[in-house]
Amino acid sequence: MREAVAAGVVVEVFLVPGAGPELEQLAAGLPVTWVSQSVLEAIAETRTPQGIVGSCRWEPASLSAALPGGGPASVLLEAISDPGNAGTIIRTADAAGAAGVLLTTGSVDPTNGKCVRASAGSLFHLPVAVETSIHEARSAIDPSRMTFAVATGDAELDLFDWLGSVPEQQSICWVFGAEASGVSDQARALADVQVRIPLFGRAESLNVAAAAAVCLYADAGRQRGKLK
Amino acid sequence: MREAVAAGVVVEVFLVPGAGPELEQLAAGLPVTWVSQSVLEAIAETRTPQGIVGSCRWEPASLSAALPGGGPASVLLEAISDPGNAGTIIRTADAAGAAGVLLTTGSVDPTNGKCVRASAGSLFHLPVAVETSIHEARSAIDPSRMTFAVATGDAELDLFDWLGSVPEQQSICWVFGAEASGVSDQARALADVQVRIPLFGRAESLNVAAAAAVCLYADAGRQRGKLK
Repeated sequence: MREAVAAGVVVEVFLVPGAGPELEQLAAGLPVTWVSQSVLEAIAETRTPQGIVGSCRWEPASLSAALPGGGPASVLLEAISDPGNAGTIIRTADAAGAAGVLLTTGSVDPTNGKCVRASAGSLFHLPVAVETSIHEARSAIDPSRMTFAVATGDAELDLFDWLGSVPEQQSICWVFGAEASGVSDQARALADVQVRIPLFGRAESLNVAAAAAVCLYADAGRQRGKLK
Repeated sequence: MREAVAAGVVVEVFLVPGAGPELEQLAAGLPVTWVSQSVLEAIAETRTPQGIVGSCRWEPASLSAALPGGGPASVLLEAISDPGNAGTIIRTADAAGAAGVLLTTGSVDPTNGKCVRASAGSLFHLPVAVETSIHEARSAIDPSRMTFAVATGDAELDLFDWLGSVPEQQSICWVFGAEASGVSDQARALADVQVRIPLFGRAESLNVAAAAAVCLYADAGRQRGKLK
């Protein structure tokens, strides 16, 4: 909630009487509707809302805003249906300095309550495009400035072996697929490169949000000259 | 389920009639109890179990098994109460080749159904110790072989700046705290080093499981000579 207020996207606030001065201060200057705890719970879609709920303005970004190419990375999520994973990846993309996130048709709606909460405000920090397709995103990329990199556990190329060879000024569009089914054949066919995160133990794969964190921070390290 | 069978820890299987040859084959050689879909759902604690549930044998590891020191990293989770985060971190630790995971008193029970599912079998792959304390873990470490590194967003030292200077043969015990409260004062006081993951965008922090993924894979990269 604090993050949404800071981002200037809150249009209306619902407060419980007696919520305390801190929450009332958070709502200062915004239209407030006073509600009971049970109404707040119904609005918040969670069992333990923290005394305040905000209604926020959000608009999906354009393809070009989420995928500027050159400079910071972009993240393309293909059919990611778990809202917690999608929100966590949006948060991680923000933290890692990515330019934007794109969700293909068939992915979760990023305004899903669980996704918004998992994004911890980042949904309002960087451009997030929805209802895009692998083909549309691929077509929007200038290959001389941005590499279309598909992360998949069965790729031959090790993420770290590959990343070390990518020039610092080249940017990357990272493509992640749903955990159960992985990336589509279409994504593989359109990829400039397919890479896998090395598995050193006995795990068969990584959670997709963990995989995104590894790739995006390894890439941030590369762009700052930290990788060999 | 497949992971648990492969790990040899399943002691009994519950199957729904008509679950199909694939699931029946998975249960081959194990004691099977046939149950209705509604009973299976009650046992599985999920709304959409996949036709099979296994009862597994699991024992917490000793402190020394989870924290051998020298070689691979260990992961110490301080008061991590979210089962999804704990399970995802156990899975990521396994993937990154960590030696083991420790949970302090006050953390979630790793046999919690959500934690087991989030670990995707990794709970059965590497030693996981429970009911430990920061002090107990710190005392078990030989500082000449293992560094007690506390990850916290307010540290001055950048993870990547620090890691590049750690000798490849030195191993690290990574300490992560709960998202809301962070690591304890005790953990900070006992730390050899406190490091932060750099935040390049506008996110105020990372999800703890994403933070663990970044640290553990950066460390795996360091141990393999990939970091500058």
